Amino acid sequence: MNQIIQDLNWRYATKKFDTTKKISDNDLATIKESLRLTATSFGLQSMKFLIVENPEVRELLKPASWGQAQITEASHIIIMCSYIDINNDHVDAYMQDVSAIREISIEETAPFGDYIKGAITSFSAEQKELWSSKQTYIALGQVLHTCATLRVDSTPMEGFDPAAYDEILGLSAKNLKPTLVLALGYRHEEDEHQHYPKVRKSNDVLFETI
Amino acid sequence: MNQIIQDLNWRYATKKFDTTKKISDNDLATIKESLRLTATSFGLQSMKFLIVENPEVRELLKPASWGQAQITEASHIIIMCSYIDINNDHVDAYMQDVSAIREISIEETAPFGDYIKGAITSFSAEQKELWSSKQTYIALGQVLHTCATLRVDSTPMEGFDPAAYDEILGLSAKNLKPTLVLALGYRHEEDEHQHYPKVRKSNDVLFETI
Repeated sequence: MNQIIQDLNWRYATKKFDTTKKISDNDLATIKESLRLTATSFGLQSMKFLIVENPEVRELLKPASWGQAQITEASHIIIMCSYIDINNDHVDAYMQDVSAIREISIEETAPFGDYIKGAITSFSAEQKELWSSKQTYIALGQVLHTCATLRVDSTPMEGFDPAAYDEILGLSAKNLKPTLVLALGYRHEEDEHQHYPKVRKSNDVLFETI
Repeated sequence: MNQIIQDLNWRYATKKFDTTKKISDNDLATIKESLRLTATSFGLQSMKFLIVENPEVRELLKPASWGQAQITEASHIIIMCSYIDINNDHVDAYMQDVSAIREISIEETAPFGDYIKGAITSFSAEQKELWSSKQTYIALGQVLHTCATLRVDSTPMEGFDPAAYDEILGLSAKNLKPTLVLALGYRHEEDEHQHYPKVRKSNDVLFETI
């Protein structure tokens, strides 16, 4: 079995974290860089990641997360948010970055910017919100791989109350919606789930070659 | 710079593939295993992956994909599909797998199965379809990382006509919806895009520590 598959088999959705272990600054920097380098539609990165270290805030978030212990016991939690209303300002800021990083004039970026603006203008408010939220799932998939390679344990969560999160963190006022929560740290030796064989569909069921 | 970040910086959305190069069976097996091991909500894997090798089918799909050359020029394309109507049959099949793989009786799986059934029953048809489609984005993120590690080039695409894909492949009759297309292979040396500096938001903009 090659290293990639060993890494991906090593990971599981950790239920009980070892509260004595913290992710190093180096590993956290790699995790952040993996999130930052994620591919997104048009490269627009219509998302923001909130890293919650404050234990009091995490205590507040726990009941808003179906009481899941990982919220307070993991080394770090990252609230993955997407922008609700993607608009021309986001595209203009992106084109400023394209211009600066690729060392081309802002005029040269105009065709690309106009193309993106045309696409997002054609979306309804609901479609925009949905399209934006999906991008965070790409980031989740990439960073789960990264964490497995680093031997950092991870628990992705969809089970939380976005409205309660909004009330605690004031997200909608910042045009943000929490889409996923990622708990990160190190498995507790007593977490029985680490010993359960992984259940996945067989290749015959999951793939079809045409 | 560590190896993970080098890998992720190496990747870019390939525009022009080298049509003379094919992904090896070994690497394709790793890519499939990465898709298979992807984390999904409840572990339900409400998705299916169609690997299109047939050049005639790929010619048909090209006009349904805004004419993008990668559809015919890449070594492989994978159509990532999600199940439209997730129902109790999916959960029952999953519980059969849990029972077989974890060597427990089907009765012992009942509380977990009932829990998932309760959750999906509470979703509207639209919510189910959306929730299901998001899972494929997790798979995309994970496999982009895998491909970068393998030095296999990749182009994720949202730009295609799902209705036209359905007409060509008869997907809705199988309860499937195409959500993403992934072109895989090897960059052409003439693809200028490989030389463009990557444009990403700065850490200050993308992250906030609370």
